[in-house]
Amino acid sequence: MLAVDLGGTNLRAAAVSEDGKLTHRKGVPTGAGDGPEAVAGRIAGLLEEVAAAAGLDAAAAAGVAVPGPVDPRSGEVAFTPNLPGWRDFQLGEALRAGTARAVRFGNDGNCAALGEARFGVGAGARDLVYLALGTGVGGGVISGGRLVEGVGGLAGELGHVVVALDGPRCTCGSVGCLETFAAGWAIARDATTVAATADGAALRRHAADGAITATIVAAAAAEGDPAALAILERAGRALGAAIGAFVNIFNPELVVVGGGVATLGDALLGPARRALPSHAFPVQRAATRLERSALGDDTALYGAAALALAEVR
Amino acid sequence: MLAVDLGGTNLRAAAVSEDGKLTHRKGVPTGAGDGPEAVAGRIAGLLEEVAAAAGLDAAAAAGVAVPGPVDPRSGEVAFTPNLPGWRDFQLGEALRAGTARAVRFGNDGNCAALGEARFGVGAGARDLVYLALGTGVGGGVISGGRLVEGVGGLAGELGHVVVALDGPRCTCGSVGCLETFAAGWAIARDATTVAATADGAALRRHAADGAITATIVAAAAAEGDPAALAILERAGRALGAAIGAFVNIFNPELVVVGGGVATLGDALLGPARRALPSHAFPVQRAATRLERSALGDDTALYGAAALALAEVR
Repeated sequence: MLAVDLGGTNLRAAAVSEDGKLTHRKGVPTGAGDGPEAVAGRIAGLLEEVAAAAGLDAAAAAGVAVPGPVDPRSGEVAFTPNLPGWRDFQLGEALRAGTARAVRFGNDGNCAALGEARFGVGAGARDLVYLALGTGVGGGVISGGRLVEGVGGLAGELGHVVVALDGPRCTCGSVGCLETFAAGWAIARDATTVAATADGAALRRHAADGAITATIVAAAAAEGDPAALAILERAGRALGAAIGAFVNIFNPELVVVGGGVATLGDALLGPARRALPSHAFPVQRAATRLERSALGDDTALYGAAALALAEVR
Repeated sequence: MLAVDLGGTNLRAAAVSEDGKLTHRKGVPTGAGDGPEAVAGRIAGLLEEVAAAAGLDAAAAAGVAVPGPVDPRSGEVAFTPNLPGWRDFQLGEALRAGTARAVRFGNDGNCAALGEARFGVGAGARDLVYLALGTGVGGGVISGGRLVEGVGGLAGELGHVVVALDGPRCTCGSVGCLETFAAGWAIARDATTVAATADGAALRRHAADGAITATIVAAAAAEGDPAALAILERAGRALGAAIGAFVNIFNPELVVVGGGVATLGDALLGPARRALPSHAFPVQRAATRLERSALGDDTALYGAAALALAEVR
């Protein structure tokens, strides 16, 4: 299979064997500023370049992970916050100018769920929830061995579920979404508030004169700074409550947490694990493991490869 | 097919044709006080009685809707709040003394989702969310034409998802579940509080000297009582926010609301419809209809029939 991970900054492609070996990796800047048609041309070019290097013929299918809602078959991208100018863009059609291959599409969260269920910590799992904690919060769900796609392939927006009816305003326009607590931007927002107070000395020191980010909070938390730990405790509690909801909704054998924010580790996942029992039925909870992704930055790339297959077997 | 709806009070059975005609209905009191073995005997007896009346031979499969978490194949019931003494009860095994038929099991919420997707307002829908608003809140989900079962058949507990991190205590032991806002007991709880104040005159009048129930609130709301309408507004807002989350999670073509509380109609569903846009992505929301169940009390019975088939086709 061929796999492409379309990011806001980088465009990455690789060939992937059925047993999960990534070969012939190649990456180029996305160059999103040039507009969707130019990016589509770059994707097709990269695909053919990797195919040629890997010795794959025109029959090899490709999967493309897109950072936003996308129709699995037509590749119509409704919108994507990370790529300016992409609104109702027919990516599938645009690719046809540069490649004759069969291409399937998925949003990066759904791809990551597929990647984990086929090649990652969830290899072999038929019921798996994947949560991507990054600048935003996304996700994907495998139920009974199949991706939960929904009627338009737009399912799996696990970051945009209410956890606090009167909570903070979200980037999506809603209020109180999981993302408003557990996303990188939400952690940075809380830390910026604290940094302006007497409790924020350690945060200010780590930030030097730069902006307060989730990475700064992690650094301060690693030193045991109480303010940083309290910020991650709040984020982790909301995360644990939402994971509890997903456990009750999906009765999964595995919840996988990936993305940059997940690398904060126990300072975030500890509070989540402690909150989880208060928000899930004991029977469902006992059936579930909570794990960190082992595929790292390649999760969506593996998922794009899995997309090229019809379903998780 | 044969279908059984096991309720806390009544045990109902019927034969169901492939095109969705219920015939040869028969009901008896559950007699839950006699213990699980006695109830299992009654279920088997009722099944054989209906089969004989309908002229169905031993090859006809049966589905049983259970008011609690149940393993779809073995019929092991982990527990059920409505049937005293049912804990880790092997219903499948117990039935074998009285019937030789193939029997499949499902909790009543999952059965109702199957019933709606096969025979109800969602007939033909491949992506459907069913919410049962009764004394408690349950549900079930059809994704890509199949029931979302989870690893132990316990998925679909849609009433027990957090919507308010610091919300009211739930019957399940969690805090802030959807059920703590939208269940019959939650509406009654809010109304009981209001009834003790000056604003509660209409509620007190409708209750006469009896307890304040959701039905009392509905009666007062129907007369335009502001206190009753405010109670249903609060419940409806939480319901709409949770439905928004389900829309983002599942991208369904249809959300069906059933159960006794759903009969409150627009006083409850109006606020839910108004809250929904604030809690779901526009694209997913535009793809979804919100409808009331048309199968009424027979939803789980139809679902039990659908269970007897392998999946929704």
